[in-house]
Amino acid sequence: MSVMVDLKWELGYTPENNAVINKWHTAIVPGAVQLDLAKALNYEPYYVGENWKDYEWMEDQYFIYRSTFKKPMYQENERCFFVSKGIDYEFEIILNEEVLFYQEGMFTAVKLDLTAKLKDENTLLVKLYPIPKLHKLPADRSQSSQSVKPTVSYGWDWHPRLVPVGIWDETGLLIQHQSELKEIDVNYTLDTELKTASVVAKVLGSDIENCICCWKITDAAGNIVLEQKTSIDSDTIIFRAELNEVQLWWPHDHGVPYLYTSTFELVDIAGNVLHEKISEIGFRKVQLIMNEGAWNEPNDFPKSQSVPPIQLEINGRTVFCKGTNWVNPEIFPGIITSNQYEELIDRAIEANFNLLRVWGGGIVNKDAFYALCSQKGLMVWQEFPLACNNYEGTPHYLKILEQESESIIKRLKVYPSLAMWCGGNELFNNWSKMTEQSLAIRLLNSQCFKLNPTTPFLATSPVMGMGHGHYLFRDLDSKKEVYEWMASSTCTAYTEFGIPSPSSVEVLKTIIPAAELWPPKRGTSWQSHHAFKAWVDNTWLMPDMINDYFGEAKSLEELVDNGQLIQAEGYKCIYEEARRQKPYCSMALNWCFNEPWPTAANNSLINWPNKPKPAFYAVKNACRPFLASARLKKFKYTEGEEFTADIWVLNDLAKATNAGKITIKLVNNLQEIKLLDWEYNVLKANTNLAGPSVRFILPNWDTDRFKLVLEVDGNSDYNSDYTFLYETLKLKNTGENLLNF
Amino acid sequence: MSVMVDLKWELGYTPENNAVINKWHTAIVPGAVQLDLAKALNYEPYYVGENWKDYEWMEDQYFIYRSTFKKPMYQENERCFFVSKGIDYEFEIILNEEVLFYQEGMFTAVKLDLTAKLKDENTLLVKLYPIPKLHKLPADRSQSSQSVKPTVSYGWDWHPRLVPVGIWDETGLLIQHQSELKEIDVNYTLDTELKTASVVAKVLGSDIENCICCWKITDAAGNIVLEQKTSIDSDTIIFRAELNEVQLWWPHDHGVPYLYTSTFELVDIAGNVLHEKISEIGFRKVQLIMNEGAWNEPNDFPKSQSVPPIQLEINGRTVFCKGTNWVNPEIFPGIITSNQYEELIDRAIEANFNLLRVWGGGIVNKDAFYALCSQKGLMVWQEFPLACNNYEGTPHYLKILEQESESIIKRLKVYPSLAMWCGGNELFNNWSKMTEQSLAIRLLNSQCFKLNPTTPFLATSPVMGMGHGHYLFRDLDSKKEVYEWMASSTCTAYTEFGIPSPSSVEVLKTIIPAAELWPPKRGTSWQSHHAFKAWVDNTWLMPDMINDYFGEAKSLEELVDNGQLIQAEGYKCIYEEARRQKPYCSMALNWCFNEPWPTAANNSLINWPNKPKPAFYAVKNACRPFLASARLKKFKYTEGEEFTADIWVLNDLAKATNAGKITIKLVNNLQEIKLLDWEYNVLKANTNLAGPSVRFILPNWDTDRFKLVLEVDGNSDYNSDYTFLYETLKLKNTGENLLNF
Repeated sequence: MSVMVDLKWELGYTPENNAVINKWHTAIVPGAVQLDLAKALNYEPYYVGENWKDYEWMEDQYFIYRSTFKKPMYQENERCFFVSKGIDYEFEIILNEEVLFYQEGMFTAVKLDLTAKLKDENTLLVKLYPIPKLHKLPADRSQSSQSVKPTVSYGWDWHPRLVPVGIWDETGLLIQHQSELKEIDVNYTLDTELKTASVVAKVLGSDIENCICCWKITDAAGNIVLEQKTSIDSDTIIFRAELNEVQLWWPHDHGVPYLYTSTFELVDIAGNVLHEKISEIGFRKVQLIMNEGAWNEPNDFPKSQSVPPIQLEINGRTVFCKGTNWVNPEIFPGIITSNQYEELIDRAIEANFNLLRVWGGGIVNKDAFYALCSQKGLMVWQEFPLACNNYEGTPHYLKILEQESESIIKRLKVYPSLAMWCGGNELFNNWSKMTEQSLAIRLLNSQCFKLNPTTPFLATSPVMGMGHGHYLFRDLDSKKEVYEWMASSTCTAYTEFGIPSPSSVEVLKTIIPAAELWPPKRGTSWQSHHAFKAWVDNTWLMPDMINDYFGEAKSLEELVDNGQLIQAEGYKCIYEEARRQKPYCSMALNWCFNEPWPTAANNSLINWPNKPKPAFYAVKNACRPFLASARLKKFKYTEGEEFTADIWVLNDLAKATNAGKITIKLVNNLQEIKLLDWEYNVLKANTNLAGPSVRFILPNWDTDRFKLVLEVDGNSDYNSDYTFLYETLKLKNTGENLLNF
Repeated sequence: MSVMVDLKWELGYTPENNAVINKWHTAIVPGAVQLDLAKALNYEPYYVGENWKDYEWMEDQYFIYRSTFKKPMYQENERCFFVSKGIDYEFEIILNEEVLFYQEGMFTAVKLDLTAKLKDENTLLVKLYPIPKLHKLPADRSQSSQSVKPTVSYGWDWHPRLVPVGIWDETGLLIQHQSELKEIDVNYTLDTELKTASVVAKVLGSDIENCICCWKITDAAGNIVLEQKTSIDSDTIIFRAELNEVQLWWPHDHGVPYLYTSTFELVDIAGNVLHEKISEIGFRKVQLIMNEGAWNEPNDFPKSQSVPPIQLEINGRTVFCKGTNWVNPEIFPGIITSNQYEELIDRAIEANFNLLRVWGGGIVNKDAFYALCSQKGLMVWQEFPLACNNYEGTPHYLKILEQESESIIKRLKVYPSLAMWCGGNELFNNWSKMTEQSLAIRLLNSQCFKLNPTTPFLATSPVMGMGHGHYLFRDLDSKKEVYEWMASSTCTAYTEFGIPSPSSVEVLKTIIPAAELWPPKRGTSWQSHHAFKAWVDNTWLMPDMINDYFGEAKSLEELVDNGQLIQAEGYKCIYEEARRQKPYCSMALNWCFNEPWPTAANNSLINWPNKPKPAFYAVKNACRPFLASARLKKFKYTEGEEFTADIWVLNDLAKATNAGKITIKLVNNLQEIKLLDWEYNVLKANTNLAGPSVRFILPNWDTDRFKLVLEVDGNSDYNSDYTFLYETLKLKNTGENLLNF
């Protein structure tokens, strides 16, 4: 019925528009001009050392993709389209020297009917304009604040300045019958019992008179649960159906992410199928409801509003969202494969996450990402491509944003994993200076309301009551540790927080020239890879802080081990503390999950492309649906100090759990000290339980570390442990600060 | 060209739909069925005593307006319409027994072409359905939470349960040429210097081929500043024009509310004017920008958003908004006249107000209101008819809200006085339980964005950072006085606050039967008129508090005088303190300005229909653009206590002011004590100046009151004074509480 024909592409460039190009290089589509040129010009890999700087000149070039091809074979009643799911960012399409099309925006697919224009031999050009860039602004993200291109590649504290350009998603010629199903819009509502879905399918066709349209839905076992046919008397066909005893789609930790298959067929009088569209469909009801307890505030006069809701409710069940911030898995989105998406999504599920926040600084992902999340039961918080800028609502910007948001909403709304829309990242803070009045935000709210009102819309993250940060284990000024600032925070949702660590030695060796590896210094590849001066002066490596806790590291290996321990313990603390603050608190999403290139140090849990740090496994444990947990005071203790911890059981399960017993111990390389047995009672569904506090005066130990170990009787899967540093008074005595003790 | 023909109306009613009506009464249109029936059935006035209770049975009736008329005279090329600017609330229109039209919604005008249907003798019926009412809910405002009927008349703490029904705005037959200008939409943008207006006028016509459309704008002196003609080739005509050196529209306290006149004429080939539309047009740029200093918050990690902006900027100038909450001036909006609007608007200007918040519990006003505000330079904050309910977004409710909001936006957007839209009153608090996710709010934001993006939209009042309340001089629990709670508040805007007082004796005598007048008691007309159990038990009269301050009142006159003094001093404190908190604070709007019927006690400044209380004059003084002002500690002092006050000069003028001298005195009936001369410096435009604090140990005085008097040398217009209660120690000594001294 439909056939895709691949094209072979070459690439040329010129600093001036319309100049003659004499040199053509092989191009890979989808991909990026940078990658093709790097290959053609024998550049060193952009992710090693400071090589990324070599690519800067490409920002201001015109790039031309060229494909020459013979007219493909097709029938009289067929048409030939040029189709592309994404071209980044501003471009013309030129066939045989005729400009057929112009577009600004990488998220709006192109489908261009070439039938009447094709000759026997054809030359198709895709001419890309230089990247959108407010030249008068500093060479950072602000240069992209009047475009709908993801801003991260203009430079971020974990992303080099390296701005992709090119054809970035599936592209080719499409041969198709002239009678086609152009656009299908399926919407449903569930009844209050969530048992019956009332489905309305609106099909927009082209040249479909005298045809029949068939619609069927099959369940996961392949049984047909719905089948309708209709003859056609206009370009628009409306199907209405009730689907009874519907299997709901659930996030993986709450049920089965059940998917049906929906098939539309366009059939001619002779019974030939002219066009077919198949997609997965899942049924769920998702809302943002008020966080429990938040309606009780504010109390005093003059009285303000209650904080906005950020408690996610799916299929009538409030869900504590454990998850992470997803960033581009590659600097060049053109080379992201389904396989790469799948491996990372599997990691997220391994980590016991149920939600990914697709951060607005990066791209809106390819279809495979959302399909995989839907299949595997991961919820997606999807942001529009706005982040940390003031996207002023000029008529031009709003026009492009309207076009791009419409494309994004229509493409993604079909996935049941889509749990919420969000205007973008940190727009209502003083580094962005957008507000609820900004026309861009009002446009996005309006577009989502118009095109997908059944999915919540959040203006930005954070809104009032939610928290971003901290991004350090220990605050630079107040010296407060994560244990302290988390315990005193009262956010409705922690939607960004980070603890940095150095990357593994194995990763570091692939990106830092051997001569620069030890000791890490500013002004080297370490800095380029965000170990220094990335956010503040010594982020993200923070050797001073690490050495302050552990003593001066004598090797790279030691520094990395120490830094990674800090990250693991810090993240454990935040996730578990956020969970303790349930139900007022409803989310914990760390900054960030993955990374688009190998950093030297970062808040990420996984090094590029998919190498978990120790913190990944710590977070995985902290996000188990059920576990023993402890609220802690600090990271480092001295002989004679009182160690104290509050013991909890955390339960995100949707069912009540059995009573049990936890044995609480302090363990070091020399001994194991049992502090307490706690027999905890039955826990209600989705409810934590606070237990006893333990206290213990630390003796003189010949060790520099110890652990708090929580052992759950008969259920070692629920066990937890926490690592602390230790020093004896004698040692401390040699320091400058004895008077504290 | 166009002729309006009045109709004579009769009114009948029936408890059942489609029942035969045998009895018809004279009806006045516009008006309300309640008023017609009251007259016909010899009811006592609804505003006296408890007579309003007599009208309750009317809620559930079907009312039918009937008009019989001969076919009016008109030409072959003319058409005859039934037109109404407003019918409240759900109705059918029936001509000669044929149902021509059905509508739910009182804010969408009706224009119904009768030409083809008229006979020589005609009977036109307007059949009104019973009021929208969720019968299962308690008999209060919640019954209206699935309708777009203003909710106040379902009962409020200052409004009786008395729900108007009827034809409430201009209505009649309209004879008009068949060629007409159906809809005109004029939009403009001002350039960054606010000197040139780029105007686009979109005219939608009917049967206008072969005509010419002329557009002209004349200035206030009648000079033509713009003139365009166009021949017509479709139903839609677009005019584009640049208006140079445009005179801006300003609120009265910042400049001239300059209005131009815009005239569209439809002219036939012979030069006959077939249709003409004339309107006033004013040019202003209005925005809500961030309150000064608010971007500096929040500081700590985890970091939330900055509060939403509520600083109004007009024509590039930040304006401190001094104003009030406007409520329906009548229970029955059908009887509000332009004259009544004008008298009340003149009062608002007299009070030095520059903004009226048209509160969402009440009606969207008739055109005259907005025209007068535009002519006189009063800004309008316009709410949609949602207040203190959870307007759940059922498909039916959203459909009516979409229709009504479109009508409201298109009608009001033409007035330059329109400074902002707002979704409604107190929707994001726990007595309403709507949130940013509520579809009704998202719909309204979307509608305003689509139809009038150049006017700000606020989701509700209050949003975060803004304050509603307090509504008492002294808190019932904490006993904190207004002086204390205002000084410790840090709101971006005080958009509701109230101090109640009894109404004047003159008013009370017209509404409370003589036998009930003294002493005021619960369960009498006092309670019906909101003196008791209106908000909390003894609001709004609060005799206990008044007597606690002044001693037991011996007469109605004494109680009223004392209560009115409290109101005046309290309001003075709030307005002046809010102004001192400028620029972080940007608004002070008291609850409320007027009232729809005579209350016995209320927070209003003006008794129905237009009788200022003493507080009106106190507020007028507190809102002078420039004045001497004092921050005070408390209302009542005892001999030997230290009196203290912080002296300020408040300046809202858009220009710097001269230096000057203030003499600060304490004055009572016996003596005048000069405390200080303060020579204040030049003040910057729109900037206050804090001066010295004065302190004085109060001696033994034979008086029960004294005043703080601020006299501005040579400018008595800037003088201020504040009244305090006083008691000697001897007197206090007889009390129970000597130990405090």
